[in-house]
Parts: sequence; structure tokens; C-alpha cells
Amino acid sequence: LPSKLPAGKTSIFSVMSGLARKHKAIDLSQGFPNFETNNHLKELVCKAMKDGYNQYPPMNGIPELREQIVSKIENLYGKKYDEASEIIFTAGATQALYCAISAFVHPGDEVIVFKPAYDSYEPDIKLAGGKPVLIELKGKDFKIDWQEVEAKITSKTRMVVINTPHNPTGTIISKNDMQRLERLLKNTNIILLSDEVYEHLIYDEEEHQSASKFPGLAERAIVCASFGKTFHNTGWKMGYCVAPEDLMKEIIKFHQATVFCVNHPMQRAFAEYLKNPDHYLSLGNFYQQKRDKFLELMQGSKFKGTPSKGTYFQVMDYSEITDEHDVDFAKRLITEYGLATIPVSVFHKDGKDHKQLRFCFAKTDETLEKAAEILHKL
Amino acid sequence: LPSKLPAGKTSIFSVMSGLARKHKAIDLSQGFPNFETNNHLKELVCKAMKDGYNQYPPMNGIPELREQIVSKIENLYGKKYDEASEIIFTAGATQALYCAISAFVHPGDEVIVFKPAYDSYEPDIKLAGGKPVLIELKGKDFKIDWQEVEAKITSKTRMVVINTPHNPTGTIISKNDMQRLERLLKNTNIILLSDEVYEHLIYDEEEHQSASKFPGLAERAIVCASFGKTFHNTGWKMGYCVAPEDLMKEIIKFHQATVFCVNHPMQRAFAEYLKNPDHYLSLGNFYQQKRDKFLELMQGSKFKGTPSKGTYFQVMDYSEITDEHDVDFAKRLITEYGLATIPVSVFHKDGKDHKQLRFCFAKTDETLEKAAEILHKL
Ligand SMILES: CSCCC(=O)C(=O)O
Ligand SMILES: CSCCC(=O)C(=O)O
Repeated sequence: LPSKLPAGKTSIFSVMSGLARKHKAIDLSQGFPNFETNNHLKELVCKAMKDGYNQYPPMNGIPELREQIVSKIENLYGKKYDEASEIIFTAGATQALYCAISAFVHPGDEVIVFKPAYDSYEPDIKLAGGKPVLIELKGKDFKIDWQEVEAKITSKTRMVVINTPHNPTGTIISKNDMQRLERLLKNTNIILLSDEVYEHLIYDEEEHQSASKFPGLAERAIVCASFGKTFHNTGWKMGYCVAPEDLMKEIIKFHQATVFCVNHPMQRAFAEYLKNPDHYLSLGNFYQQKRDKFLELMQGSKFKGTPSKGTYFQVMDYSEITDEHDVDFAKRLITEYGLATIPVSVFHKDGKDHKQLRFCFAKTDETLEKAAEILHKL
Repeated sequence: LPSKLPAGKTSIFSVMSGLARKHKAIDLSQGFPNFETNNHLKELVCKAMKDGYNQYPPMNGIPELREQIVSKIENLYGKKYDEASEIIFTAGATQALYCAISAFVHPGDEVIVFKPAYDSYEPDIKLAGGKPVLIELKGKDFKIDWQEVEAKITSKTRMVVINTPHNPTGTIISKNDMQRLERLLKNTNIILLSDEVYEHLIYDEEEHQSASKFPGLAERAIVCASFGKTFHNTGWKMGYCVAPEDLMKEIIKFHQATVFCVNHPMQRAFAEYLKNPDHYLSLGNFYQQKRDKFLELMQGSKFKGTPSKGTYFQVMDYSEITDEHDVDFAKRLITEYGLATIPVSVFHKDGKDHKQLRFCFAKTDETLEKAAEILHKL
């Protein structure tokens, strides 16, 4: 049997979470919180089920939630999407990313991906027959090298993928960089895929630079977002994407084919819950405290890192401790120390080892304290 | 922008459901019940959320549910799948079908599809670059013409898709036919995709002939099933598929890419709920009564049809009433009579009109009565 993705393997997130479960380790690996999603939100799901919203919702989602999201985006980023034709709900942002890439990447097409990168873009591109063109982010703050981008854009470039706030590095793309991208893509047919699942997790008075904000980007952008990352319920598998109608039309063909529609009672619950913007506007402060707590706890340890500006991940260098490969070190941390993390090499081009681990700080203070205690032993 | 599916359009189920909503019509169109899913099952979802099962489940599903399903299959069909490597949960059976087709159909590959057919197989095949090879089911009871199948199998045939019980016709594939298929596929590399989402909705003392039952089929079969169709909650978007490990390995690459994993609290609820086999074993009787009720109500009308042997659909001929095209007639039934159905032409090769409508009888007796009252006016 010929395989569509011969090198395709189990995602590092499954591997490390599985190991964490097996060894009952403290788990700072896969990106999910270990505290609870809001009780009222759970009750809203129960109410929706009780009220009988248990059958197929419309394929693109219920109007109430579509309206909520397009007005949220308009308020935050000043761009008004059409609720009828420019938004769909997806089974997690994963499905949005998959459909966006599958809809537009044809065999032989090139897609620019900045490395390090979340591990789903490249398989999605390859499954569509496309060629990932990898560009390393530069320096300690992982900046985009625009000259390299310009040099790597060819007539085959179909799409550029960006991710801000950035998993795993916790950096964010600046307004200047977004404007630079806007100028670069002007007068091209290149599609922008903007993974913004951590849009509300942004720190130190920084502002999220959504692709939706920049007219020259919004006109060609598919912006993917996540309810799970925002509302502490990654296991509900709810996300969405917005895009101009001509792009959305093609995405919907894959949406219809891959899942057709997504969870009805949960859509209903979110439509109600989102009426209070505090539920997402408070997240930056909330997670900034978590980040600060974690960094404070790590002071004096041999792990070093630049504070994250967004996401709920903190990358740290462990080269003072050992020169083991990060995958080996991460596995040993689980089996010998009972602590799970993600080795950063899996995000890098050719799996290059930078002696760094990624810690998810979306955890209770107690968990962060226990984790730090272990890490101080190293 | 070149499209991957230029002819791809909004599914008939969206169109008719949308029209039904708009005209507040009695809705016997899209396949979902209008009575409630079990209250205890809803409470189990609430309990799972309360108990904190709100983050990513394992990629292939929680072990408790995997074990439930493999033992259910073993009890019903005598085939023991490995719970660790031969089952995954999916965002509805739709996602299982998509992943199965995407994983194995390469550009240029041929896939045999029997017509009339549910409307997702062909787009899935085309999106993968494959070529649907359409074979008409023959006669009033929609039998497979094995000589035609044999004649149409070529060195390019990658897959055969079957669907039993059959949407839209309500026929089922017999044991003899499954054995015939088994002999035919023996010594080939052809994969069997068996859509069995209505496995428990089977009438008149007939027995469901799952591909899992036949060793020569099970070794090459991907069997897709649905929780939504079985437990009256199509809007929860939960399904699964089973396949031998070598096939499942490839399916998982698409599963990981398309959705990664599916709703955690709902998996948990089903794991508990499935402990009582009555919840699915009672379905045949339950829906047979619905079918009988509907057919009885339709007696004396100008709609004629052979009783369904499975699924919750009844196809009926309306040629005594009008010679309008079925799509036009179905639309007029909504706008003028307030009753929504599905025109059967959309399932047929080249959309051939047979003057038939499909009625979904998964409705309360009251709804069926109201529908029949309208239909008697015609
Ligand atoms: C869908 S699993 C990946 C979770 C995640 O976003 C991460 O850990 O980076
Ligand atoms: C996923 S929408 C289709 C529902 C269905 O199975 C049908 O109506 O045939």
C-alpha cells in the first residue's frame, strides 16, 4: 500500500501526553490547561442539550454564534466579516488549518512556513501534494528575515503560513512586520494562512496583530482561531476560521467533506457565553500571571529563557545541565523525574536540537510549584 | 484560484434543511430524529464535563470507549479488533469516510461506488484525485450486478464502497452478496469501505451483514459507524471506524491532520452509556414501528414505495401526482405545502430523476401524522 505520508508519525503531543499519563507525571507538555473551564459555560452546554439542540446544526454553524464572532472580530480588529458567507465553525482549529491548506495547495505548490513551527502545517501541506518551503526565524526573538522571504517567493508560492502569538517560542509578530508582509503580498495571488489560536493570550501590554486588521492581508487571509485554547476546554474540539467569501467557498468544500458540521449544543453554549467579552478579554492578565509565576519559580534553576510574550508556552534552554538531545532529555525527565515537557527540536527544521524544552504554564499554581521543585533538582 | 472541486456545491441536505427552517416546514428531509436523545445520556455528558474531562483526549479516543466498541463488535459480528490500534473515534461518520478515502485513494485511482449513493463518497474521491466508477444498483430491490462489478474492476481499482443498510433506498446487502464480494476481492489489493452507520436500524427479522463478519472482507475493510444515527444525537458529531492495523495506520495520519481527536466529555458519556446493549439492540424494533406507522399513514395516498428494510428512510414514487422533476417537486412541497423531503435524483448517477422522494421517518408520531395529512392532499 503506497502511503500518502510515508514519514508521517504520531504527533509529539500524543507521544509525550501518553508517556505523561503512563508515568503519572506532572504534565507541562501538550498545550492544555489543568484547571477547569467555566462552570457556567458547562451549564450552558447542559442547557442546550436539555433544550433539544442535539441534531445537525447548519453546516457553517448556527447564526447566533456566527454573529457573535463576526462582531467580536469587528470590535477587536476593525474588520467586518459577513456572518453568512465568511465564517465557519470547525472541529478545533486543527480542522480549520487542514481545510485551508487542502483547499488551496495543489500538487507542486510551494508554501512558506517559518520554523520553528507547530507540527501540523507541514503534514497538511504534504498531504495536499505541496512543498513546504521552510524559513528559519532569526535570532533570540525569532524575527522574520524579510529578505529571505522575498528571495524564496516564486511563481509556485501558493501560500504563506504565519502563527502569532507563536507556538512554541511565545513571540509575537509586530505591526511593522505585518505591514511588511502586506506590502510583500500586494499584487500577488498568494494566500495567507494566519494561525491565531492564542490571540487572547498576549502579555506586557502588547497588542495582537491579527491579519484581519490589515486590509491588504485580510483580503487574502484565512484566520484560524480556537475556542478550546481561549476557554480552557481543548477537549471540546471547537474552533473557527474566517476568510473572504471567495476563499471560504473553497474551504467549505473541504469542511463539508471532512466533518460537514460541528457540535451543536456546544455552539449554542458559546453563542451565549461570548455575550460577555470579559470571558476572553481577561485572559491576557490571567495567563501573564501564570507566566510570571512560572518564571519566578524557575529563578535560580539552570533553565534559562526569554519571557514569552504570548501563548501559554515558555521555552527554556537547558544546556547548563546536559548535552543530551532534547528528545532524550524530555523522555528522561518523564521517566526519572515525573515531569513531562515538549522537546523543541520537533518544531525545528530537520529536527535540529537547540537544547530547549517547551513548558506549558496553563497549569494551577500548585502544579507549577511542583514542576519547579523538580526542575530545581537538575 | 483553481478549485479542487469546481463542481462542488452545497449538499442537498443543507439546502433542504435550510429551506425547511426558512419556511418552518415539517421536516422529513435531512436524516435526523426530531425526538430527544436519552436524558440519562445527556446527564452523562454533563457529569463528564463536571468531572473535568474537558481537555484533549488521546488522539485515537479514550480506552474505555475503545474497549466498549471492540467488544460490541465482537459480540455482534464475531470479529475482534485490537482496541489499541484498530479503532478511532471521528467527528461523525463523515470524517471517518473522508479519512478512509483520502488515505488510500491516489490520483488516478478508481473507486467503485454503487448508485444511488449518499452524496459524500464522490466528492471525497474526487478531492483525493481519484475517479469514481459508478455502478447502478439493479431492479426494484436495488441489487448489485456482480457481472458488472467484475467487468469494471481494473488494475486501477483501489477501493469499493458499500453502504448497508442503504441510504436512500432502505435496502440491505444480503449474506450471499457479501460472500460474493468476499470471493471477488480475494487475492486483490482492493480496499473495502463499508458505510454501516445504520447498522442497528434493520427490520423484518433481517440481520445486518457487517463487513466485519466476513474474514475475507474484514481483512481489507474500513467499517464506518455513527453514534449520532444510533443514539438520536446527530448534532454531537460522533462516529468511529475500525480497520486492520495496517490500514488504520494510514487513516490515522489523516485523522491527526483533520481533527487530531474528538469531543472528550461525549466520549466519556458514550463509554458509560454503551454498557447497556439495550440502548442499541432496541433500535430495530423502535424504528420498525416508525416505518410501519408512516407506511400505514400513507396508505391511500398517491405515493407508492416498497417498505424499507433498514435506515430511517422511506423512498416513495410520486409519478401518479405529477411529472415535475423531483428537485422542483421537493422545493414546491416545502414552499407550498410546508413539508420538506429529499429528492432522490441527487443520489443518482447524473442526477437522474426517478420521480421519487425520500422521507425520513425518524420523527414523532405527531409529525408523521401531520406529514401524511399534507401528503394525502396531493
Ligand atoms: C492538537 S495537540 C497540540 C496541542 C498544542 O497546541 C501544543 O501542545 O502545541
Ligand atoms: C451529514 S448530513 C446528511 C444526513 C444524512 O445522512 C442524510 O440525510 O442522508
